[in-house]
Amino acid sequence: MLVYIAGSGAMGCRFGYQISKTSHDVILLDNWEDHINAITENGLKISGDVEDLVDLPIMKPTQATQEADVIILFTKAMQLPQMLKDIKGIIGAETKVLCLLNGLGHEDVIRNYIPERNILMGVTVWTAGLEGPGHANLKGVGALNLQSMDPNNKESGLQVTDMLNEAQLNATYDENVVPNIWRKACVNGTMNSTCALLDCTIGELFASEDGLKMVKEIIHEFITVGQAEGVELDEEDITNYVMETSVKAAHHYPSMHQDLVQNNRLTEIDFINGAVNKKGEKLGIDTPYCRMITQLVHAKESVLNIK
Amino acid sequence: MLVYIAGSGAMGCRFGYQISKTSHDVILLDNWEDHINAITENGLKISGDVEDLVDLPIMKPTQATQEADVIILFTKAMQLPQMLKDIKGIIGAETKVLCLLNGLGHEDVIRNYIPERNILMGVTVWTAGLEGPGHANLKGVGALNLQSMDPNNKESGLQVTDMLNEAQLNATYDENVVPNIWRKACVNGTMNSTCALLDCTIGELFASEDGLKMVKEIIHEFITVGQAEGVELDEEDITNYVMETSVKAAHHYPSMHQDLVQNNRLTEIDFINGAVNKKGEKLGIDTPYCRMITQLVHAKESVLNIK
Repeated sequence: MLVYIAGSGAMGCRFGYQISKTSHDVILLDNWEDHINAITENGLKISGDVEDLVDLPIMKPTQATQEADVIILFTKAMQLPQMLKDIKGIIGAETKVLCLLNGLGHEDVIRNYIPERNILMGVTVWTAGLEGPGHANLKGVGALNLQSMDPNNKESGLQVTDMLNEAQLNATYDENVVPNIWRKACVNGTMNSTCALLDCTIGELFASEDGLKMVKEIIHEFITVGQAEGVELDEEDITNYVMETSVKAAHHYPSMHQDLVQNNRLTEIDFINGAVNKKGEKLGIDTPYCRMITQLVHAKESVLNIK
Repeated sequence: MLVYIAGSGAMGCRFGYQISKTSHDVILLDNWEDHINAITENGLKISGDVEDLVDLPIMKPTQATQEADVIILFTKAMQLPQMLKDIKGIIGAETKVLCLLNGLGHEDVIRNYIPERNILMGVTVWTAGLEGPGHANLKGVGALNLQSMDPNNKESGLQVTDMLNEAQLNATYDENVVPNIWRKACVNGTMNSTCALLDCTIGELFASEDGLKMVKEIIHEFITVGQAEGVELDEEDITNYVMETSVKAAHHYPSMHQDLVQNNRLTEIDFINGAVNKKGEKLGIDTPYCRMITQLVHAKESVLNIK
């Protein structure tokens, strides 16, 4: 198979690197000039659990021409529509597109560019970091779940699952992936925006009595909206999962903290808490915590003059 | 009259200084050792619109013994109960107590220590700053409104109004002071907590589209709860007042920003947005914006390890 990684940041590099060790071909796509130059000149450097240096083709999305068998979407949420426009030339009638972005509502965007039968939705708990252009740091073990959006096209999902497992990415074909996507979004929705605003680690947030109260109100809004959309979600189960995650990740600053506080970049808030508020509005469900946290993060972006 | 200033921070120093220029006697009360020592040794230094140095008695609240004619309360909100306990010895049957604290709900605290007929509630737009121990910076002109809580004791309120006007403090006896107290609390409730959390000036907050949306939702909660308590409040009028204040004070960091961000001190959030949420709970009115902002500020206090 020819596999494109559309958005080759930290996670894209992990997936591209691991797939490059199989019989499949990988092409990385990205728009970051320094990253493209570093990988083109010196290869992709890997450190962390393994030390490696691999030759991998990388180019801008608009420069790719060879039709893809599989495209794995790993952009930031707000870059997704532009990416789908830019890679039009490599999307054939049978090209499968796997979405592994954080957050909610991406299927509505992807449907505008890709026929439903070729869309695979997924969620992953793999992690990765970038040390700098062309240098990924890979630590720990993860997994991912995916499902064909069109139930009649499970076969495509299974083929992609097999390909990912050749790359030791611990993929599972999941007959009901949507609740898992919501579960991860709920973890992000409770920790990312709050830690970014409070400039604190996950452990510091959860050590605060009032922090915990907020977390529980946010979870409740996610569950209420998700259930109203027909997604099977159990509040106690998700609360336990969020609490467990907070313990494991206590010393970490979530990715939105990295974006907003550390790097002064736009955040994905509209696709996490903002998405729940938007869905809530359509369903007639008020979600003031998700709405206010979205407004606070956007106000902070405005204060920092991030565009 | 013998006038005590119970809580001689920046505002207490302004009032004490101006009253000291009249025929009335003033004693400052405070617990800050360096401040007491500086004023005792060198007098109270005034800079800003005037340069002056005045001898003023200052002592700890527990050390005051002479019965007061008037006590002006100017503590931080959370220090009020302790102050009222500490000054028990100077409160006589005819001692009038004027409350000029920011925020809502202080009358419920004061009633536990002072008979209702001697309580005066007020609100002021005077400002002041402290340059350091024993040194107040006074700029600009302000005013204050006050009212006797007991309508049968208007006479006391008028006497205190006269005394304050001798000190050129632009006092008005206000037959309906409560809406004005709410109006100021609403200004604080929209700007203080949000600017403290976002680490920004009032102008930066109001320049953000999402910041403005939040401001309007917070105002709406204040109005809804106030009206349910029987306070005459007009949403359009208060919104206009908040907007005008935001323009005048655009370059300022509000006092809660100074407390939380600049000095890592506990905030008065429980007496502003927190008070509205608490009143809302009693009245069966949900105020999620006030509740969440209170939780965020407390979570930030916890992250900063402020106790």
